[in-house]
Amino acid sequence: MTKRYLALDVGGTNITAGLVDQEGLVLARRAFATLAGRPPKDVINDMAAHLRAVATESSAGPPPRALAVGLPGWINQERGLLIQAPNVPGWVNVPMADIMSRMLGLPVCLENDGNLYALGEWLYGAGQGLNNLLVVTLGTGVGGGLILEKKLWNGSFASAVEIGHMPIDLKGAICGCGRRGCLETVASATGLRRLGVEWLAAGRPTGYLGRPEDLTPIILYALAQKGDEMALTIFQKAGQSLGLVLSGVVNLLGLEGVVIGGGVAGALEFIRPALWDVLARRVIIAAPEKIRLLKGLLGEDAPLAGAAALLRERF
Amino acid sequence: MTKRYLALDVGGTNITAGLVDQEGLVLARRAFATLAGRPPKDVINDMAAHLRAVATESSAGPPPRALAVGLPGWINQERGLLIQAPNVPGWVNVPMADIMSRMLGLPVCLENDGNLYALGEWLYGAGQGLNNLLVVTLGTGVGGGLILEKKLWNGSFASAVEIGHMPIDLKGAICGCGRRGCLETVASATGLRRLGVEWLAAGRPTGYLGRPEDLTPIILYALAQKGDEMALTIFQKAGQSLGLVLSGVVNLLGLEGVVIGGGVAGALEFIRPALWDVLARRVIIAAPEKIRLLKGLLGEDAPLAGAAALLRERF
Repeated sequence: MTKRYLALDVGGTNITAGLVDQEGLVLARRAFATLAGRPPKDVINDMAAHLRAVATESSAGPPPRALAVGLPGWINQERGLLIQAPNVPGWVNVPMADIMSRMLGLPVCLENDGNLYALGEWLYGAGQGLNNLLVVTLGTGVGGGLILEKKLWNGSFASAVEIGHMPIDLKGAICGCGRRGCLETVASATGLRRLGVEWLAAGRPTGYLGRPEDLTPIILYALAQKGDEMALTIFQKAGQSLGLVLSGVVNLLGLEGVVIGGGVAGALEFIRPALWDVLARRVIIAAPEKIRLLKGLLGEDAPLAGAAALLRERF
Repeated sequence: MTKRYLALDVGGTNITAGLVDQEGLVLARRAFATLAGRPPKDVINDMAAHLRAVATESSAGPPPRALAVGLPGWINQERGLLIQAPNVPGWVNVPMADIMSRMLGLPVCLENDGNLYALGEWLYGAGQGLNNLLVVTLGTGVGGGLILEKKLWNGSFASAVEIGHMPIDLKGAICGCGRRGCLETVASATGLRRLGVEWLAAGRPTGYLGRPEDLTPIILYALAQKGDEMALTIFQKAGQSLGLVLSGVVNLLGLEGVVIGGGVAGALEFIRPALWDVLARRVIIAAPEKIRLLKGLLGEDAPLAGAAALLRERF
């Protein structure tokens, strides 16, 4: 009998509750607003209600065995504690695992959202079969997770890889984290918009006629398809910065591959040439063609599939 | 009875043969020139002669059980092959493990020299007790090794960490590897000299009266002790670059600490302030005071002690 699990993917804007089987297949899903301003207790009540709903939404099958929660912040796994989430103000030291376990009558594991994404793409997606792998998510920010020797890497602090805050340019823009020149200032949706705002402020040529602050990766992608110089240059810059950081990580750890996921990966065809150009020139540890540069396959399902990957050995 | 091992630390200029016990204590040692121009066969004959000598130089004790060879290049551990060593021209695809094993009648393991150094400092030196640790060697180049979950990290290609080629400045100087802006162009003995040559060419103030090309880390250290502006500025720049790269690696992997070894670490008191300043500002995964920044304890004994660390479980 196929085992089933519940998954919760908590973002700064949206939360997704899912029901997923042990093969990483998402059987049911519900998205709702994070409502960052509300007290954690109310949001947790919402989460539980949506999880109960997805648990029964799918066609007949066994009840879910456990829940994995992907959180955009610092967690203490042993104590089941969300320590802090930068994009969800007011959530500090919330004992989420205990609370949700009591509400749902299931074991609950907390994990960083980038780590769940990485587990999903590795076990069920683009990274299948690789032993040592970095998964990068290009979204509002830049995150991800590392698989080392076929296991999710957690490090000494159960932290995320924080690849978005790897430095690319000491004299670069100020990042949302307060530091200067982080990868995220260029290679995230926020970073792409920032580059667009700069481009427009400089009066450089583009077919974009909207407001600078309305620029999204989707708009930039559409512009790039029409050959728009602004869009192509911005994606090229993102690619170069990614190539710089990813080559450093590949060289450091002797990785076989990198999977690029997250919303911005939709524009990977325009990011990839510059990324690969820099990566291929800077990779030292092996012939560049031995390093796989892969586009994520699961999209928004990746963290939900990752929940199954996290739980299937234990529950 | 204490077990003993042979160790060979092969550098671009010198080779050291050592006898070391299972506690990492170096019982005997002989250094001789690498003589890069000579055929590998002749050099290997020399190595074997020196190893036989150190094996009998120490006071009575059991014969060594195995040999570990630290090599400054790419190796294939399973096949016991030195694939290539950039600083030892002519050594390509040399089956060193087989050759030396036959000559000495002992099992022989090959390892990257930075990895042996890291093993030594971790098990017997400054990194004792840490689970996740980067050891950086600041020498002619910048190298090192990673200990992850109490094990030496080898990655998919048995490569070194190549931390010396992490990018710090896309518009920076050309590195010995041909790439631009590698950490090594600033934080190695070569990099420090390069910065000194630039300083002198610009006619900036310094008490140094020698030839630019004769600048060494030891001279710079002596100058810095006298408050020389050139020396202090150069060490500060090295510290900033190290802080940038090390904070990225600490954040990526959730490391508890970094050990700084190699000859240039002798000047760590002048490098450390800027290094720590950048590191403390850029560390995200934990409060900065939880990250240990340690000076290596073993110096040139580190790779020899690392040989014992590598071999003691197996032989």
